[in-house]
Amino acid sequence: MISTQSFKRPHSLLQLPKMLSVRRKVQDWLRSEVVDDAPTDERLFPDLKPPIETKGLILWLTGLSGSGKTTIALGVERELKERSCPVELLDGDLVRTNLSKGLGFSREDRETNIRRLGFVANLLSRNSVVAIVAAISPYQAARDEVRNTSKNFIEVFINAPLEVCEDRDVKGLYAMARDGEIKAFTGIDDPYEEPSNPDIVCYTEDESIEESIAKVVAYLEKLEYIPAKPHIKYSI
Amino acid sequence: MISTQSFKRPHSLLQLPKMLSVRRKVQDWLRSEVVDDAPTDERLFPDLKPPIETKGLILWLTGLSGSGKTTIALGVERELKERSCPVELLDGDLVRTNLSKGLGFSREDRETNIRRLGFVANLLSRNSVVAIVAAISPYQAARDEVRNTSKNFIEVFINAPLEVCEDRDVKGLYAMARDGEIKAFTGIDDPYEEPSNPDIVCYTEDESIEESIAKVVAYLEKLEYIPAKPHIKYSI
Repeated sequence: MISTQSFKRPHSLLQLPKMLSVRRKVQDWLRSEVVDDAPTDERLFPDLKPPIETKGLILWLTGLSGSGKTTIALGVERELKERSCPVELLDGDLVRTNLSKGLGFSREDRETNIRRLGFVANLLSRNSVVAIVAAISPYQAARDEVRNTSKNFIEVFINAPLEVCEDRDVKGLYAMARDGEIKAFTGIDDPYEEPSNPDIVCYTEDESIEESIAKVVAYLEKLEYIPAKPHIKYSI
Repeated sequence: MISTQSFKRPHSLLQLPKMLSVRRKVQDWLRSEVVDDAPTDERLFPDLKPPIETKGLILWLTGLSGSGKTTIALGVERELKERSCPVELLDGDLVRTNLSKGLGFSREDRETNIRRLGFVANLLSRNSVVAIVAAISPYQAARDEVRNTSKNFIEVFINAPLEVCEDRDVKGLYAMARDGEIKAFTGIDDPYEEPSNPDIVCYTEDESIEESIAKVVAYLEKLEYIPAKPHIKYSI
């Protein structure tokens, strides 16, 4: 009798008949000398789809408005998609509409927003998704709170001096904050607590966007969260 | 030369050396008569982990307080976990703490809550997770709004007459609503719009909990969202 232990992955077992049906093909292949156009296991077993073995994680990009969070997040997302990694980008601005409508910019509301982002990022990451969060998230304590709820939390500090961010002022928000049209704007009249021990720092004043993206991706590769970009040569 | 077409799943290809290293085992197996303890492909290729081919979906349980949503949701979650399906349960009550703190029970706030649940369920389901939502979600329009954002939305009406729910009054909320201690309580002084065209109806007055759970699971199996429970016999 087969012990029930073998049945942990039912699909795996259900594919046995399929495997047997390609027995001849397999036998030929095993007998053959391996040549340049050796079949891949994918071609032998078209229904076997080994998963991308991505470990889910939360990639948390924090930094001032205009520091480059969204741009870098989009670049990392693109790189991960090229590797067929499951990825979701939770951009602070976009998510405010869907998750945090009604929340303002008081300390309490900002903390609630961060917690909520953390909650959703956690749901995703524990299901093998790379959840990229791009949000100012100005408080160390709130970021640490999220970090403590997750096994795989990577804090990326998008570090650009306030002057540089204000000079860029992509959305015109700094001007409005200086004019008093926006209150409690991070960096102007609301604090930004720099990460005390970030896993990655991107200096967007000095690095190009592509360099910053590459730095983050290299880190994820090094820790084997994601596979290397496929450019495979092999011989047997 | 191998075309780059073969490289779509790099992990698959990287497993070739491993496959070759078990060549002898495979050959022996292919030559052998299949017997009761035939090796599974899992045992042959321990590193090949064919994914559970679960299509992500939103399983939306709607019904009055006390109708049995949470109990059925927990049962379905258990059944899916036994099948190794990725599953997350978003229970209305629990989620109110994490996602919707501050929202009340006005029509607008209830709708926001439903939309928010839908947003998160969508993020999960498009990443192959079965997102089970158990929430009163009293408005047809709001439920339909979520349905329209998702390819795989299954509405389950947990149907129990108000008298039955009130009689159960598991949380003592109906008594409080009747006493006026809780305002805008669905079924008492706030409307519940029954689903006009639900995919599944569980009549929890007449069915046992296990029957209701089995009904939902059978539906998901029939539509091939989830694999059948493994109880495999095979011979070749």
